[in-house]
Amino acid sequence: MFKRLKRKTASPSSSRPPPSSPRPEPAPTHRLYCRPHFLHQGPAETSQKGDERARPVLLPPKNKKLPWNTGYAEVINAGKSILNEDQATCRPIFLRKAMDIEEEWILLCPNEDTQDQGLAATYWGLFDGHNGPMAAVLASEQLHHCIKEQLEEILDVISGPCNVPPPLHLAGHKGTQTEISYGVEKNICVENLVKGALETAFKNCDELIEHYQASHNQAGGCTVLVILRLLGKLYVANAGDSRAIILHKTQVLPLSNEFTAVTERQRIQHLAFLKPELIGDVFSRYEFPRRVKRNDIGKKILYRDYFMSGWGYKMAQEDDLKYPVVHGDGRQTRVMGTIAVTRGLGDHGLMVYDSDLQVKPFLSCIPEVTVFDLGQQEFGQSDVLVMATDGLWDVMSNKEVADTSQRFLEDQNHNPRRFTMLAQCLVNKARGTLQDGDWKLEDGSFASFDDISVFVIPLLNIADSV
Amino acid sequence: MFKRLKRKTASPSSSRPPPSSPRPEPAPTHRLYCRPHFLHQGPAETSQKGDERARPVLLPPKNKKLPWNTGYAEVINAGKSILNEDQATCRPIFLRKAMDIEEEWILLCPNEDTQDQGLAATYWGLFDGHNGPMAAVLASEQLHHCIKEQLEEILDVISGPCNVPPPLHLAGHKGTQTEISYGVEKNICVENLVKGALETAFKNCDELIEHYQASHNQAGGCTVLVILRLLGKLYVANAGDSRAIILHKTQVLPLSNEFTAVTERQRIQHLAFLKPELIGDVFSRYEFPRRVKRNDIGKKILYRDYFMSGWGYKMAQEDDLKYPVVHGDGRQTRVMGTIAVTRGLGDHGLMVYDSDLQVKPFLSCIPEVTVFDLGQQEFGQSDVLVMATDGLWDVMSNKEVADTSQRFLEDQNHNPRRFTMLAQCLVNKARGTLQDGDWKLEDGSFASFDDISVFVIPLLNIADSV
Repeated sequence: MFKRLKRKTASPSSSRPPPSSPRPEPAPTHRLYCRPHFLHQGPAETSQKGDERARPVLLPPKNKKLPWNTGYAEVINAGKSILNEDQATCRPIFLRKAMDIEEEWILLCPNEDTQDQGLAATYWGLFDGHNGPMAAVLASEQLHHCIKEQLEEILDVISGPCNVPPPLHLAGHKGTQTEISYGVEKNICVENLVKGALETAFKNCDELIEHYQASHNQAGGCTVLVILRLLGKLYVANAGDSRAIILHKTQVLPLSNEFTAVTERQRIQHLAFLKPELIGDVFSRYEFPRRVKRNDIGKKILYRDYFMSGWGYKMAQEDDLKYPVVHGDGRQTRVMGTIAVTRGLGDHGLMVYDSDLQVKPFLSCIPEVTVFDLGQQEFGQSDVLVMATDGLWDVMSNKEVADTSQRFLEDQNHNPRRFTMLAQCLVNKARGTLQDGDWKLEDGSFASFDDISVFVIPLLNIADSV
Repeated sequence: MFKRLKRKTASPSSSRPPPSSPRPEPAPTHRLYCRPHFLHQGPAETSQKGDERARPVLLPPKNKKLPWNTGYAEVINAGKSILNEDQATCRPIFLRKAMDIEEEWILLCPNEDTQDQGLAATYWGLFDGHNGPMAAVLASEQLHHCIKEQLEEILDVISGPCNVPPPLHLAGHKGTQTEISYGVEKNICVENLVKGALETAFKNCDELIEHYQASHNQAGGCTVLVILRLLGKLYVANAGDSRAIILHKTQVLPLSNEFTAVTERQRIQHLAFLKPELIGDVFSRYEFPRRVKRNDIGKKILYRDYFMSGWGYKMAQEDDLKYPVVHGDGRQTRVMGTIAVTRGLGDHGLMVYDSDLQVKPFLSCIPEVTVFDLGQQEFGQSDVLVMATDGLWDVMSNKEVADTSQRFLEDQNHNPRRFTMLAQCLVNKARGTLQDGDWKLEDGSFASFDDISVFVIPLLNIADSV
């Protein structure tokens, strides 16, 4: 993610560092830093490091096959940080009932969907860090454990007959008919239990990161985009501005929405209205098209309050000279002049520059969960799910990604490594090429200066396994 | 609307009074009460009163033509109140610039769209009252003035060339190029100014009702559904559980969403989380499928918190014995055991029974505004917009309304009064017939016991006028 913690007076144009600038020194937390587990052990394709300006696209080694033949590629940013702040996880999760003897286990057996090892799920996660890489590292290491814990607690219920509503009580006795009827009336079903489990897991993981950051004096946050394949469905949990889409024949099906200071403006302003102490005397809760100046006072100026999806005019007053709690243009729009993304994990203790105001109360760790039923569609060889951090979507539209994918997969129909090669192709396109010191797209416009991470998940095999 | 202020322990079944029960005595505010202005002056068709059990369907008199040949019909509830708590307004609004000499004027010249009288708009409003009829009466008399006031303030901007973005400052000087560019960057356009005007007008009208209720010692609230035809677009502003749909050829296009304790559960719970003092020691913010009992304590029971779209299990505790802030099944679900609808005007000073807790902080007066561009579709003789209070939608689906409308309008193709006759037909169907003391639908199930009000707006003429 390309969103620095910036001072209130910094201009939008200053947020793009020159690609040839030296990377900053790594933070003391560097020793815990790592790249995704499936990039390790690769002798050839991960050895392209060296020239920091080259931005090589990194792929999993040829001998490392990801679950469901998932493709992956990543590239580091153009000099913003010495470390790639994106992280990625892709692994099976085997759910089994909690044992009497406490036992912590994650089995790494790709594509083994055997019942005796428990209920098999697959987990993909993308984490886009800001203010340091460590929240993304922590989330990529911990979130699937939090999800597994939540799902195992309800394993009996979700792995039971799918036409029976969940019982009112979790354990101890079978629900009476009356108790089950409550579930029917409220449309409580396995799908909603899994949604609840994901939501609770994100919250628990955020608390875990809070404890870790407090005890290790660390800072930073990250967005999270998770896909969970479970019982014939894909659960998409998104907190931040990464994006997942399904490319099905010639159609694009969006699976997630982005959460930024632009899309969550009303939520942020409403909280500032409900709890004015959170913005103190520093910020105004109103949004204006530009900062109000002293000579605007007494004139009616365009504005929006928390209750407005539209715009109106208000008489500018002395108080309106304060910095707006949501301010900026387009992707430069920030909450309290500090952060552009409004959902994710971490950021505990993040302060507004030169004030005693916390930013975290305005951020949400809760994902929006959407569900895609794999049994409802027939998939072909070229139907894929593409999930990527904003480094890709900043410079490529859904349609461009769809067109590129369709062309690429038709050409590479029999190549077993085609999904990683497609991910590589997408990352290559979005990163562009270095021309006269600037990263440029094919059409000559600016390419992505950000970290870029892309998963390409083929849907044919997964759907067939349902 | 059929949502009584009910005590916390009342059972859902007790909310339907027997149709033959005597109506309660009218409140002292009765003298201000009236039916919609276009029902007055009708000698024949409004004279069917008398037998309170008959529930005659009332129509505008034949000599009263509503703007755009709009059809209308209404029926009173089955004995819940002596007065019909629904209200309706349908009138042109002529917008013109505020004059030096203060002048309050509403011209009542149906279908005269002449420019020298200002910019012409059309306004339809449905208001569904609860806890007395007076908030609906007030809103039906005042809201269009509030909207007119907001729109006239921005009249120069919205009636100017549509491809020029609104200026940063409302008046005094033409915007500089830089100032206009702010509007372009933020996609500020006439449509968004009208949305903002509607949102602000609802808020202002709610404050107006607050002052009136305080000074006249009155109570009650109402939902609001407004359609505004302006500059070739329909603006649909909805706060409550009325509904508007467009029937276009064989398609149904929903124009509004309902706001109830069910659909706004997370907003209500989140406010209870942010401001626990609003629920005091009386309520729990958690939702459970049924009230928690003492013998649930120590067991894991199904629940939802504010951050959950799904369900989870929590260990039931002593605190969970409190009444949930959102509780009930289906349409009986209420906020604080008091009210089922969560948006609308009024309800100032509404208290939770037997406590010192206010309900109003949990209610919103802000509408959701959607926009329908009349120039984007070609309409035929049978394409209509149907807007109705929940009395209709409680017993008829969108599809049933669409099928009925299509059949009816095909048969009555040349009848100039067909849109009022269709409204009558829809109200008749939803009210049903009195069989053995109960109002029943054709299929023998319970009909609507509620007040029912329906507008049918033909789209062909309106779209042609664009």
